[in-house]
Amino acid sequence: MNDRQYMARAIQLAQEGIYTTQPNPRVGCVVVNDGIIVGEGFHARAGFGHAEVHALQQAGSLAHGATAYVTLEPCAHYGRTPPCANALIAAGVARVVMASLDSNPLVAGKGQAMLEAQGIVTSVGVLEDEAKALNKGFFRRMQGGLPWVRLKMAGSLDGRTAMASGESKWITGVDARRDVQKLRAQSGAIITGIGTVLADNPSLNVRPQEWLDWHYGEPVQPLRVVLDRELRMPLEAQLLNQTGVIIVTQQTAQHCNVQALNAKGAEIWHLSDTQHLETVLAKLAERGINEVLVEAGATLAGAFVRANLVDECIFYLAPTLLGSDARPLLTLAFTDMAQQRRLVYQDMRMIGQDVRIVARLSV
Amino acid sequence: MNDRQYMARAIQLAQEGIYTTQPNPRVGCVVVNDGIIVGEGFHARAGFGHAEVHALQQAGSLAHGATAYVTLEPCAHYGRTPPCANALIAAGVARVVMASLDSNPLVAGKGQAMLEAQGIVTSVGVLEDEAKALNKGFFRRMQGGLPWVRLKMAGSLDGRTAMASGESKWITGVDARRDVQKLRAQSGAIITGIGTVLADNPSLNVRPQEWLDWHYGEPVQPLRVVLDRELRMPLEAQLLNQTGVIIVTQQTAQHCNVQALNAKGAEIWHLSDTQHLETVLAKLAERGINEVLVEAGATLAGAFVRANLVDECIFYLAPTLLGSDARPLLTLAFTDMAQQRRLVYQDMRMIGQDVRIVARLSV
Repeated sequence: MNDRQYMARAIQLAQEGIYTTQPNPRVGCVVVNDGIIVGEGFHARAGFGHAEVHALQQAGSLAHGATAYVTLEPCAHYGRTPPCANALIAAGVARVVMASLDSNPLVAGKGQAMLEAQGIVTSVGVLEDEAKALNKGFFRRMQGGLPWVRLKMAGSLDGRTAMASGESKWITGVDARRDVQKLRAQSGAIITGIGTVLADNPSLNVRPQEWLDWHYGEPVQPLRVVLDRELRMPLEAQLLNQTGVIIVTQQTAQHCNVQALNAKGAEIWHLSDTQHLETVLAKLAERGINEVLVEAGATLAGAFVRANLVDECIFYLAPTLLGSDARPLLTLAFTDMAQQRRLVYQDMRMIGQDVRIVARLSV
Repeated sequence: MNDRQYMARAIQLAQEGIYTTQPNPRVGCVVVNDGIIVGEGFHARAGFGHAEVHALQQAGSLAHGATAYVTLEPCAHYGRTPPCANALIAAGVARVVMASLDSNPLVAGKGQAMLEAQGIVTSVGVLEDEAKALNKGFFRRMQGGLPWVRLKMAGSLDGRTAMASGESKWITGVDARRDVQKLRAQSGAIITGIGTVLADNPSLNVRPQEWLDWHYGEPVQPLRVVLDRELRMPLEAQLLNQTGVIIVTQQTAQHCNVQALNAKGAEIWHLSDTQHLETVLAKLAERGINEVLVEAGATLAGAFVRANLVDECIFYLAPTLLGSDARPLLTLAFTDMAQQRRLVYQDMRMIGQDVRIVARLSV
């Protein structure tokens, strides 16, 4: 096997942490001694061991003189765990191959420098794109940006979500709804609008008991953010049955509902203009949120697209025609072709009875 | 190799005739002597040799005692060519394996009976579904039904074809447009509305020079049928540059344009109600049309769906969002979910930059 193949295995391992590492990145590590994989590890949860530590532990004394393949530059700082660069040095590895450097200003080349200072040979850039794809939101946030934003939409093949009357139950199938849980589980936060809360009373949480293949331990529930200008959030909303709810409103702290919502565990952000979607995303990035999922009605979905804040669209298209009077997937009042939003298709597949199309918005 | 494998090869051969056999069915034949394929053939064009004749010719004296695999029951009647059952008997084959019997009342078991009367062993039903899929329209028409109707739609991922103003150029890419030529080439007739003719002035013909892989000789141009209630067809329409145009109108033979359109080679059907789509399809079936492609605007497309006359939808979805004020893929004024038209997805793939989804309408 060559460097690329070992790194591919490390990426595969990192993938195991996809639902549970946030706000940390997903990282995998393989330790190879004389052509034999002697240790494998991945980061599973913030506060728990990093990938390198697990792999070195498994390798034991065979780490001495070995090559370590890591999907991200080993950390050089004391966070919730000690620096991984130290662990690699202590284990006596001879060479460290990294897919990419870390963009975290606390690391950013310092991990590599620490290793080299101890005479360890390093190289960077093996399967870099593939490894970075694991952590699109983490890299963006570390570079001072907003989270990676996914917009989920579900409707009919003719692009409709409900009849004009609002009638809409069960358009996509059970497999698509289960698939959405996977999108939620890899997101640090879910954004919705008060309209959706009032209409559907969703939980917007991760429910492992509904998965067929959950083997990730206790789920890390995403923050659930409701854009609720007038603070109409009902106290009995299902959303409030779990902690981690943020309500974004234009109402002041004096509004009569604030206290009761606080008592229910909800945090309230008083923003002067809830339409300032970018402000909400920036505040979530400050909170350590790497990936955001927008699960909203046509109006809010359209507002995100119009504001060019969506990185990736996920469309679930059910095998049905709801007709031209039915409600649109997203409200976008364009009048001429120049306003269209072009996409680049990334992936398409059947999810049960439905088609799922993933597309990047090319800004 | 076994019976199914030889039949699979015969189906592959039949496929070569997909664009050129109409109104005849696509048929392939393989002659196997002692485990060796000694002859292969397919039907290419009405009036030219049938699959069995080509395969037997290639087999020569090795056809004696051989097994012939045919995707359709050999014909028993004198049409434009003599009966294939006779040819098989004359060649001395010992066994004939058919994927299915022919539904043509002139054949329908008579071919099999002729063979058996001469002591040839026959069997029917090997890969029957796969073989019948080659000739869905032919079987339906032979059983006294309408042609197989495909509805082609092209639009944006959010289900739109043009801005409200009508602005619409180049939504799907060049590969999708080339793919539509393949749909046309396998169709005996294309139906459109006068609105499309007036707006786009299309040719609706098969243009081998635009294909990358045309190797089928002179194309068999489909009939082009325009639903034109008021007889507004312009004499300079591109459509009229080739023969094979039928105009369906409510105007009488006395209408001032009739003579000029006839002079241009167009045939005119005076029907009391051009909305009687089923009548048009029935008349096309009488003409020997097996497969019809509807390439029309949202109104006519919607009318075909509403009338439950569509067997298969082909959607080309371009990677773009045109917005919720843009024109719908098809006009279907449904008010409640019970009216929705459910589909069954058959196939999806990328065609250049676009997604193509093929779906059956489940009536």
